Amino acid sequence: MERDKALKIVEKQLTEHRYVHTIGVMETATYLAEKYNENVEKAELSAIFHDYAKFRSKEEMKQIISEQKFSPLLLEYNSELWHAPVGAFLVEKEVGIKDHAILDAIKFHTSGRPYMSLLEKIIYVADYIEPGRHFPGVDEVRELAEINIDKALIKSLQNTIMFLLKKNQAVYPDTIQTYNWLVLEGGRTI
Amino acid sequence: MERDKALKIVEKQLTEHRYVHTIGVMETATYLAEKYNENVEKAELSAIFHDYAKFRSKEEMKQIISEQKFSPLLLEYNSELWHAPVGAFLVEKEVGIKDHAILDAIKFHTSGRPYMSLLEKIIYVADYIEPGRHFPGVDEVRELAEINIDKALIKSLQNTIMFLLKKNQAVYPDTIQTYNWLVLEGGRTI
Repeated sequence: MERDKALKIVEKQLTEHRYVHTIGVMETATYLAEKYNENVEKAELSAIFHDYAKFRSKEEMKQIISEQKFSPLLLEYNSELWHAPVGAFLVEKEVGIKDHAILDAIKFHTSGRPYMSLLEKIIYVADYIEPGRHFPGVDEVRELAEINIDKALIKSLQNTIMFLLKKNQAVYPDTIQTYNWLVLEGGRTI
Repeated sequence: MERDKALKIVEKQLTEHRYVHTIGVMETATYLAEKYNENVEKAELSAIFHDYAKFRSKEEMKQIISEQKFSPLLLEYNSELWHAPVGAFLVEKEVGIKDHAILDAIKFHTSGRPYMSLLEKIIYVADYIEPGRHFPGVDEVRELAEINIDKALIKSLQNTIMFLLKKNQAVYPDTIQTYNWLVLEGGRTI
């Protein structure tokens, strides 16, 4: 699918603010894909559609999580996690994208997962550091992303987990497992 | 078993520094047991023996973890975790303590576990706040322990997890699951 067509589709799903964020993720993800020798077109499409389901109702997301037998654990944790797997499902169903590398990059862009692919890492990090992001620690992750995608990923996971701990919020098991995998196994995917 | 006999047994297993720590945990644990209506004798014995295996060799601990079919995951994580389950095993085998409430308080005093008992919570927190402990955040946990043992436990888990994250060290899954259980289910044990 061509970039302009994809952008037109996703624009209808998002607020203006979230669309601007999506453009930022797209630009950052294609930059990182070039840097780390990942497929640039796949990075572009994954980024364009990563927040596709962001504004679906909680009811619709809950229903899809149940019907598609996604981890029931999702429903016990922050609803901010839901749009990622639901998005992957809807992007396949409604937009017709079948490429599983792209769908997985959308599916795991919020939680991460152990053994995540390079494309998944790029989308996760691009979502964290795109130019519209402003929060403590983001510049350090931007600097790491220029040098080593795994180090950028570890730092963004550390920041995210500490943010949740400080707010007395639960930490989704996949997220801590992704961090542990990076620390214990160095992010090897094979 | 009487306190003096127990102390004599454990003194032989520990350095002087660790024995002084053990006395601190004992005094704190009996104080908390009285405050929260837990069995004071069980708290005393759990505290006295909580670090029983602290100075066993890594080889001996590894062997016990394998032979007793403790979680093989333990061996992938920090060896600081090993003395707790190994201690519970050796306290039963070598000292002859059979009370499972006490043995579990020893077993889970480093990692925690979801649905931990009040006695387990008391030993975990007492180990963290005994008077010999001096590190950032310990006073806040001491204050919380006067009011609400679950809040003291959450704060000590948060501090521990943040400390590990800052050092790029893995977080044992039981530890984050204990934190999540407290946050999501409020520490209910039934």
